[in-house]
Amino acid sequence: MEPLTRQKFSELLSQRVMFLDGAYGTELFKRGYIKNREPIELLNITNAKAVLSLQSDYVCAGVDFLLTNTFSANRHKLMKLGYDEYFKEINQSAVKIAKEATKVANKQVFVLGDISSVGEMIEPLGELKSKYVYNIFKEQVEVLVDVGVDGIIIETMSDIKEAKLAYLAARDVAPEIPVLVSMTFEENGVTVTGTSLEVYVALFNDLDVDAIGINCTLTPEKMVPLVKKLVALSKKPVFVEPNAGKPTLSADGKLTYKTTPEEFTIYIEDYVELGANIVGGCCGTGPEHIKYMVQHIGLKRPKARKVEELNVVTSRVHMFNVAPFLVVGERINASARKKLHNEIREFNFENVLKLAKSQEQEGAQVIDVNFGIESVLSEEHFSKAIVELDKIVSIPISFDIQYNEFLESALMEYPGRPLINSSKATKEELDKKIRLLKRYGGLLIVLAMGKEIPKTAEERYTLGKMAVEYLESQGIDRSRIFVDPLVLPIGANQDYNVTLETIKKLSSDGIKTMIGLSNFSFGMPNRDELNASFLALAMHSGLSGAILNTSEDATMKILRGMIRILGKESARISEEVKSSEL
Amino acid sequence: MEPLTRQKFSELLSQRVMFLDGAYGTELFKRGYIKNREPIELLNITNAKAVLSLQSDYVCAGVDFLLTNTFSANRHKLMKLGYDEYFKEINQSAVKIAKEATKVANKQVFVLGDISSVGEMIEPLGELKSKYVYNIFKEQVEVLVDVGVDGIIIETMSDIKEAKLAYLAARDVAPEIPVLVSMTFEENGVTVTGTSLEVYVALFNDLDVDAIGINCTLTPEKMVPLVKKLVALSKKPVFVEPNAGKPTLSADGKLTYKTTPEEFTIYIEDYVELGANIVGGCCGTGPEHIKYMVQHIGLKRPKARKVEELNVVTSRVHMFNVAPFLVVGERINASARKKLHNEIREFNFENVLKLAKSQEQEGAQVIDVNFGIESVLSEEHFSKAIVELDKIVSIPISFDIQYNEFLESALMEYPGRPLINSSKATKEELDKKIRLLKRYGGLLIVLAMGKEIPKTAEERYTLGKMAVEYLESQGIDRSRIFVDPLVLPIGANQDYNVTLETIKKLSSDGIKTMIGLSNFSFGMPNRDELNASFLALAMHSGLSGAILNTSEDATMKILRGMIRILGKESARISEEVKSSEL
Ligand SMILES: [Zn+2]
Ligand SMILES: [Zn+2]
Ligand SMILES: [Zn+2]
Repeated sequence: MEPLTRQKFSELLSQRVMFLDGAYGTELFKRGYIKNREPIELLNITNAKAVLSLQSDYVCAGVDFLLTNTFSANRHKLMKLGYDEYFKEINQSAVKIAKEATKVANKQVFVLGDISSVGEMIEPLGELKSKYVYNIFKEQVEVLVDVGVDGIIIETMSDIKEAKLAYLAARDVAPEIPVLVSMTFEENGVTVTGTSLEVYVALFNDLDVDAIGINCTLTPEKMVPLVKKLVALSKKPVFVEPNAGKPTLSADGKLTYKTTPEEFTIYIEDYVELGANIVGGCCGTGPEHIKYMVQHIGLKRPKARKVEELNVVTSRVHMFNVAPFLVVGERINASARKKLHNEIREFNFENVLKLAKSQEQEGAQVIDVNFGIESVLSEEHFSKAIVELDKIVSIPISFDIQYNEFLESALMEYPGRPLINSSKATKEELDKKIRLLKRYGGLLIVLAMGKEIPKTAEERYTLGKMAVEYLESQGIDRSRIFVDPLVLPIGANQDYNVTLETIKKLSSDGIKTMIGLSNFSFGMPNRDELNASFLALAMHSGLSGAILNTSEDATMKILRGMIRILGKESARISEEVKSSEL
Repeated sequence: MEPLTRQKFSELLSQRVMFLDGAYGTELFKRGYIKNREPIELLNITNAKAVLSLQSDYVCAGVDFLLTNTFSANRHKLMKLGYDEYFKEINQSAVKIAKEATKVANKQVFVLGDISSVGEMIEPLGELKSKYVYNIFKEQVEVLVDVGVDGIIIETMSDIKEAKLAYLAARDVAPEIPVLVSMTFEENGVTVTGTSLEVYVALFNDLDVDAIGINCTLTPEKMVPLVKKLVALSKKPVFVEPNAGKPTLSADGKLTYKTTPEEFTIYIEDYVELGANIVGGCCGTGPEHIKYMVQHIGLKRPKARKVEELNVVTSRVHMFNVAPFLVVGERINASARKKLHNEIREFNFENVLKLAKSQEQEGAQVIDVNFGIESVLSEEHFSKAIVELDKIVSIPISFDIQYNEFLESALMEYPGRPLINSSKATKEELDKKIRLLKRYGGLLIVLAMGKEIPKTAEERYTLGKMAVEYLESQGIDRSRIFVDPLVLPIGANQDYNVTLETIKKLSSDGIKTMIGLSNFSFGMPNRDELNASFLALAMHSGLSGAILNTSEDATMKILRGMIRILGKESARISEEVKSSEL
């Protein structure tokens, strides 16, 4: 049989709704194979028949994808349980058993290598280092891929950073096969670590995953609202695996899941109706649930979905819409602050954190991070800073980092959809940023300049537009780009109308713009007066965001005032359009 | 001989420099005619020959204008001295003597009825009422005109309000003959009551006077800088009469003026060189000074002058350039403040004054005065308020008064060049305001509306422009007009771009614009955010002034910021023009 390419995976999903299997843990427990504290994955080498039997049942039930019994079989988790010496054997055996099981099928069944959490928290929530965790995942994926899985499924993740690291490991090891990612949410639509479904989807929409899913934790019924959000926001195929209800603990210590195959299937039908591409079961579901589901859903074309663009930047826990206006705080900037720069060099982030916190309180939606002269810094300065900020600051970060390797370590550490600040509009620099945007997601600010700053608005506009079109040709959507039309100091007698004109031209093409506002008043007294005034003019010209000094009261008032004015204006216009249509 | 019309006066002045006479008081004292405490004007009836002799000497010296010996002969001053029963006789006789004296001339010599201060201060500097003082002057001018003076000269005034009242009286009595007005200044260019030469000229440029002069107090040398200012700023013919130096008091109690006829004439030549139209002498000068002057100057065409436009509004002591931007404080507005309105009704102006003072401190350049519902008020509410404001507030006033008779009493009382707020753009209303502008001077705000507010910018612009052109056709210069393009509440879903567009169109025609800024945010929360934002946009569109809330910090910051930005921009542009011309 031909191997499962990403292309083929995508084609299959476009043809019909496909089926995942059900639970392993709860089912193997029910069947009496689980001893205290022993990972169920140990069965792969101690009782392969038990696993094969369950998997054969799933195959007979009609699944399209069979998962390997490797959910907890990463080296870190096995080590904690004392079984890490069997790491390789457990994973290799798992793939073999699954492949064996698929043989009983009367259709092609694909084997997905199952990956989940390392079972301990990563910094700053816990002690583990990102690179260590990345390597743990990488090692497991390598084994699974070596033995021949058709794809990788990352499941039941509750920390978005861990999900991202697992994804990066899987994609790095296996660029050619499908990688499916799924996180698990509480009833309020947020993971136990505070990440909302929206933040999760916003990030993974940017990444090179083949499907985005949600699984576990919730009953089929409680999962419906989350499925609605997921199908509305995900640009990728969607998969859903609910639990078979909420477990009850019986007198003899047994967990019982009460949702019947029939009830389970009613909700699965709802998911499919909403537009889910792949459905299956999580804890408490067994072959009967899957069989009933497959029979009832049968061959069904996936429902077409209308996807809302998530025009947002996010941290782990906060998401800000780019519209109507994105406010980026500029004050973590060590380029002109020797003391701050020295503190950073010594890994003393106290003032960085204070500045972040105060900007957040003043109304910043994103915090720009610029550590000044980078030749005296190391990757650790950046990755450590991101971890520290993640602890204390809940708003997103704008990465104002010059050296690409430092930028990449910071992005690796970042638990959200970032803003990257910035790239010149040269192919060489854009190519570097495109790689990072694809690997880590996020939005990019492109400066409307090459080696020099063009003098006229027409030139800046043309350069900005060309950059946007090049990025689009490389798969980076226009919605992920801001063009910076460049603000020059009025003290140097620069013509600020060039900037305003560039903004107008770009925004009439639907291209977002972002300025470094304070540069306008560079070297002048009473900078807030000048900054606030210019902000009003730039916003009226169509500006989409600014990096600015949130401690300037007048500037923040103009910001709020102009947002209200422009909001009123667009409401008025759409009102006019409506009444003219009547 | 034909009488002196204003037309003829103007023609004569365009042909050659003309001559006034010298002093009466100091000269008659020197000749031994003056007894203690007796006004020299008493001589007109007690020793007409003495007066005739001096005046004949002046005629022989070659004057073109002979003044009547009536400087202190107004009824109020005579009354203070105990001679008011002779008021009529003194003035009548004075004209007759002067006319008699002119008969010895070999050219046409005109008799100017001489008027000066009532000798006591008007409210608020003193106790006298404006109407009383106006009537005192009117009575004297009536007598002088009755007997047949060719013109009226108002001299040596140090209170601009008194000068204005004297002018109004003269012009009201004698619309057909020349009226010349002169104030007297200290060496620093300011009268003893605090009015600068600029404020004086700014007001009298607007009024229907035939010449503007300065006289007395200063030596010929010290007067030079003031003459320079006067010739640079006066739109009317200019006259100058210095003293014959600084007097010294001799041991026997005699005042001696030391400037010789030769030295006197050196400076007179300077004045003529600068562009003075009429020259003569004040205290200490006698027939020898005048004779020497006339012989030396001879027949001379007046020097052409280049007049700088005084685009200002003024109070008694303060002047604000309309450019780059005029800031009018809006807070004395009793229309929506019942308590304030009630206080005003009861002539309690405490809070009005407090509001004025605080707006001045916040940066207002002009204070708008709106007393709300006027049907329950009287003329006295307005004239009294202006007197009270004159006491305590040093910045100019914007007269936001509906009833024309109330507006006129307020203007009558006002010691400066006011702003009149406002007139609709209808002929009927404009005509009423034109009369007031001509009589009291000042600038006018014209609303770009007739009975209703036009919807489009094109209509508002056209209406505003037509109003400006009509005012110009009636002698009101474009520099004295602001058009209000009308700001409507954004809360009512009005299209603010209509206002901005109207501003742009008007200002590209060199028409000044003024808005009532706060109307923009009417009924909305956080009004300062909206007002400040809209101010930036309007100023960028070319706005020339705004009535606004000076207690809004953000608004004041935008004001200062935009003034700096636009100032930088126009400097940059003129720099570019300069370098392109090289
Ligand atoms: Zn589960
Ligand atoms: Zn004098
Ligand atoms: Zn005099």
